[in-house]
Amino acid sequence: MKLGIIFGGLSYEHEISIVSAIAVKDVIKNHNLSFIFLDENRDFYLIPNDKMKSKLFSSGDYKKCEKIDIDKNGFFTKGGFFSKEKRVDIEIVVSTMHGGDGEDGILSSLLDFYNIPFMAPRTEACVVSSNKYLTKSYASECGVKTIDFRYFTKNDKVKVDKYPCIVKPVKLGSSIGVSVVNDEKELDYACDVAFEFDDAIIIEPFIPGVKEYNLAGCKVNGEFQFSIIEEPQKGDFLDFDKKYLDFARTSTAQKALVEDKIDAKLKQAFEKIYNTIFEGSLIRCDFFVVNDEVYLNEINSIPGSLANYLFEDFNKTFDGLLNSLPTKKKVPISYEYVNKIHANKGK
Amino acid sequence: MKLGIIFGGLSYEHEISIVSAIAVKDVIKNHNLSFIFLDENRDFYLIPNDKMKSKLFSSGDYKKCEKIDIDKNGFFTKGGFFSKEKRVDIEIVVSTMHGGDGEDGILSSLLDFYNIPFMAPRTEACVVSSNKYLTKSYASECGVKTIDFRYFTKNDKVKVDKYPCIVKPVKLGSSIGVSVVNDEKELDYACDVAFEFDDAIIIEPFIPGVKEYNLAGCKVNGEFQFSIIEEPQKGDFLDFDKKYLDFARTSTAQKALVEDKIDAKLKQAFEKIYNTIFEGSLIRCDFFVVNDEVYLNEINSIPGSLANYLFEDFNKTFDGLLNSLPTKKKVPISYEYVNKIHANKGK
Repeated sequence: MKLGIIFGGLSYEHEISIVSAIAVKDVIKNHNLSFIFLDENRDFYLIPNDKMKSKLFSSGDYKKCEKIDIDKNGFFTKGGFFSKEKRVDIEIVVSTMHGGDGEDGILSSLLDFYNIPFMAPRTEACVVSSNKYLTKSYASECGVKTIDFRYFTKNDKVKVDKYPCIVKPVKLGSSIGVSVVNDEKELDYACDVAFEFDDAIIIEPFIPGVKEYNLAGCKVNGEFQFSIIEEPQKGDFLDFDKKYLDFARTSTAQKALVEDKIDAKLKQAFEKIYNTIFEGSLIRCDFFVVNDEVYLNEINSIPGSLANYLFEDFNKTFDGLLNSLPTKKKVPISYEYVNKIHANKGK
Repeated sequence: MKLGIIFGGLSYEHEISIVSAIAVKDVIKNHNLSFIFLDENRDFYLIPNDKMKSKLFSSGDYKKCEKIDIDKNGFFTKGGFFSKEKRVDIEIVVSTMHGGDGEDGILSSLLDFYNIPFMAPRTEACVVSSNKYLTKSYASECGVKTIDFRYFTKNDKVKVDKYPCIVKPVKLGSSIGVSVVNDEKELDYACDVAFEFDDAIIIEPFIPGVKEYNLAGCKVNGEFQFSIIEEPQKGDFLDFDKKYLDFARTSTAQKALVEDKIDAKLKQAFEKIYNTIFEGSLIRCDFFVVNDEVYLNEINSIPGSLANYLFEDFNKTFDGLLNSLPTKKKVPISYEYVNKIHANKGK
């Protein structure tokens, strides 16, 4: 198939999205790939495969590549005085646009609006997973536990009952703006950092040494396909510097040693979260396990390098998902009620 | 100010959105209005003010109006061989696009992406309010009660413990696809109807004669401004035929007789729901009151005719909101980590 990998975006995760797209380039085996870059000015560029190196972007040289437009049914090269605009030959768009523009639902809405098939969470799923407050309320409704938390907006008086705690901007991923706070003295600074990135924050108890497990998967023709479960390597907590390396990972991760009952509980929680709003996307759920209870930490709705490194046969799952993307219901437009108003008014 | 009222959309509420835009035309007093229609083919048209009659749309005659494109910073007339494309002179877009495309976050994402200022719920707020499952989980997290419910997707076996109950598609507004079910015999048909519109449904107990109150409002410069509280007129339950008339309403509603403590509880619940994700929008919350307890029934994130008929001075609130729309944080794009990878790799 002809796939368009879309990446970049106006977001704090702009550059890790680039790293992720580059990683994915070497991982996807059975398809013809094109690369579509969204720059900070919200211009789209078609990047030739052999130019897909991070320096192209950091140097600004991508601007020498062909600028394209999004429109109905696809992306189009710009016509000139002597040339007609041409549709870029892509059947399905695959998103590795992490963070804003990608994971917040903006891009999915665009693709949806312009009727372009895509592998990525739909707008709803993006919103639920990119806002930690909404993730927690959604998880709780689905019957999946999350760590207790408090929510504060910019004008609130921040109050913490117990230290250590962890302060997070409500919307960013990849640990951006996240701090572990050991005592009251450190709280103000941590909140200032988090509020620099967002107008709202959440504060959770920090559980040193908590067991953390990552599990990726998706639904292929109505059946779940799971990755292995990984226990991510971490220091005190996974900061951005360490975490962003996931975006460049292409070699298979090591399977965590997990008891069967925990394995089953993790998969059950994943299914509850995924079902049904994440259809069309390959997601990674990061869980905590405390006293044999599973807690959802976060949903990565577009995980770094599509979490390829967690799958024993990534291409099988990826190809399966490509073939079972959700379709939209046809909405009939009628003027029944307008006509009724006319009739009632005698017009 | 120069406002662009946007309406239509590919949705079941296409035509009531038209009715709503026409109503709003006569209600907004202090601004120059333009009208932007989105048709079922997702083409935008600029409709001259004197052509804003529902027949223009039901007859298809709107196609004779000027087609425009959405692009960076606004809408543009198409250039021809002898004419240059021109930006339509609009400062702020105001949405009366109910249902799909409008209330599901698609349009808000587009306006956001193309950097066009707008009065309407942002993408997140749309998602939370257009999906009843997410509304309930969000409300519960905010500390606002909702009626107990069960959620079913297409392949589930639907089971109901108690009749009468009410069956609703999870995503549609304006009572589309909603049925009251009196006994088991009626259940299958009601579910079929609801599933015709959506892949998921919710079923709630139906409380005959329950007290229902509607309250609209928004935040202007950090302060809430509320409408009067109305007790909507209804039969057994508010069906689409009766409800859609709200979309054409322009005369002030009658204030409900509500005890002070209930009045306060309704406003408190509204504030919890609105705060802070609905900033930039004027919404209407529909509540039930059972034994002096307030339950959120639904959030109309783009209420029919902007709920103008609920306000004693609609233009004052509307103008206030226009002047306190949320602004987006500037996101700096850096290549710090890409450069770090290069350094680590020695490249």
